[in-house]
Amino acid sequence: MTQTRRSIHLAERPKGKPTDANFRLEEHPLADPGDGEVAIRVIWLSLDPYMRGRMDAGPSYADPVPVDGVMTGQTVGEVIASNADGFAAGDIVTGATGWVSHAVMDAKELRKLDPSLAPVQSALGVLGMPGMTAWTGLTDIMEQREGETIAISAATGAVGSVAGQIAKARGCRVIGIAGGPEKCAFATDTLGFDACIDHHAMTDGKAMAEALAKAAPDGIDGYFENVGGKTLAGIIPNMAEGGRIAVCGMVAWYSGDNLSEGLPLPVLWRTILTRRLRVRGFIVMDHYDRFDAFVSDVAPLVRSGKLHYREDVTDGLENAPAAFMDMLTGGNFGKALVRVGPDA
Amino acid sequence: MTQTRRSIHLAERPKGKPTDANFRLEEHPLADPGDGEVAIRVIWLSLDPYMRGRMDAGPSYADPVPVDGVMTGQTVGEVIASNADGFAAGDIVTGATGWVSHAVMDAKELRKLDPSLAPVQSALGVLGMPGMTAWTGLTDIMEQREGETIAISAATGAVGSVAGQIAKARGCRVIGIAGGPEKCAFATDTLGFDACIDHHAMTDGKAMAEALAKAAPDGIDGYFENVGGKTLAGIIPNMAEGGRIAVCGMVAWYSGDNLSEGLPLPVLWRTILTRRLRVRGFIVMDHYDRFDAFVSDVAPLVRSGKLHYREDVTDGLENAPAAFMDMLTGGNFGKALVRVGPDA
Repeated sequence: MTQTRRSIHLAERPKGKPTDANFRLEEHPLADPGDGEVAIRVIWLSLDPYMRGRMDAGPSYADPVPVDGVMTGQTVGEVIASNADGFAAGDIVTGATGWVSHAVMDAKELRKLDPSLAPVQSALGVLGMPGMTAWTGLTDIMEQREGETIAISAATGAVGSVAGQIAKARGCRVIGIAGGPEKCAFATDTLGFDACIDHHAMTDGKAMAEALAKAAPDGIDGYFENVGGKTLAGIIPNMAEGGRIAVCGMVAWYSGDNLSEGLPLPVLWRTILTRRLRVRGFIVMDHYDRFDAFVSDVAPLVRSGKLHYREDVTDGLENAPAAFMDMLTGGNFGKALVRVGPDA
Repeated sequence: MTQTRRSIHLAERPKGKPTDANFRLEEHPLADPGDGEVAIRVIWLSLDPYMRGRMDAGPSYADPVPVDGVMTGQTVGEVIASNADGFAAGDIVTGATGWVSHAVMDAKELRKLDPSLAPVQSALGVLGMPGMTAWTGLTDIMEQREGETIAISAATGAVGSVAGQIAKARGCRVIGIAGGPEKCAFATDTLGFDACIDHHAMTDGKAMAEALAKAAPDGIDGYFENVGGKTLAGIIPNMAEGGRIAVCGMVAWYSGDNLSEGLPLPVLWRTILTRRLRVRGFIVMDHYDRFDAFVSDVAPLVRSGKLHYREDVTDGLENAPAAFMDMLTGGNFGKALVRVGPDA
């Protein structure tokens, strides 16, 4: 029996915000696994903001998805046929298969998961790339120290929610920025953040700056940047002397809008100088040599139930583009996942 | 005999570029030195770009000069009367007297100079604050490493010329940016830089980017930022992965013009992310615990004649405002000094 492989392709590059026309669903027969390869049926697909950058042709930290190519992405799946030592049908694995229902992969590009330790999809979230991003940004890039005031944008997202909870566990005062009263209530009531600012209620960078000045009267020592836009415009005048900004993403700008949010470049540059700020961009894949340190630090918080995480699940691979576009405008609430197939 | 003290005051705060109307010369009798104080006649006044920032009321890293207050500045002078242990008439000292012909100072705020070691005005330049700024920016902020490509703006100025020569001495490839063919020839022929770009010949940030791409085809590992403006707009797209920017000043922006130089904030922010850049502002006064390390590193280069420096001397305290305004638009060529009185 030949298995059908469904896959979502980049039909054309977006101009600004992605639309349905940028994506195309295809169906092809699944190849047989060659030597050292395994065939997988995908159970979970992770949707992440970085994917927006890959849709553009411009230079970035990774090659763009070619037009007509399969959208890149990390998944968790079940091995259905193996031609590789150490892998057998029924194994649960994670790897960069892309937005597909099935894949044939080199076994060396897969990592086996132990389903008894945690729900397998946590390998795409709190114990996977987003969690590692949060931990690296705080620990190695921001060099966050006990007792500091830390601001985190996209505070209830897959990265921000973990970053804020780690900072709380380390004795920091944490101020979240999130979209809407429901997310803000979750940030303070469930995640335990000290304050949360609803950016939907802020008309511009000036209003954001005033709200942040109230929430952090002594200034912000560290800012975990996920969004850019008017949030950044509000953060900059509130940075404390010697403050650090870990630049992890800029979802507000990925789609080309919000180019004038009230932060003139000379104001940013002058503030970096006069307050001796440190701004550093990072890409988590540069730091995977620290993966074990991350897991040993964060897994105990997950197992003990101290680290809360929330998933925003969409059913069906065909609905991945809509869920992705929704996520880019903050429509998700928690780690964005697509359930591609039934649990093992 | 009562000595007359001439002093230059901030008559009103500038709006944009400073004008003559912002300055006022006053004459008053010089007070007698009290207990622990000395009276000084000033020989050399240093003019530095940071002084422009002190003329504004806005928050900066130091208190602004109050309206009607004496302009702040560092000088070298001769003690003419001493009421302090360890200081005698004829001693040569340096201190922050401001823009004055004479001053009465607490001896604890002065540092004695040995005129046999180097021309005394070098304490205001290559072996003083500008030299220390250059050394700190390269060594501790940019963390420049051997063999890297380093770009330096205001490359023939008091800071840039020293930074570039130290980088050359450390085995780096150095690209200067300076205003006009005469300065560029000095940068390559006398200072020994590998290339110099004349920013007067660059119409905008795009032209600057193209010129830098030719001069640094493998990208810029470290940028010593003194100017902002179109130079910065040209630098950013040429930064190499993992590059560092030491933000020391922004003379092109100090006077409120050049606000739109073709570098949209999202482009800067995205480049910081995708190329994993580190941007760090610094103020040399935070780093004076490293003064001895600086002197032991740089003084041998000065004594051996390997480190060239150039002075741009204006005669007469009354001409300090014009010389200062000229410096802000790059009219000086070398360390800007005012000869306030005759040599000792």
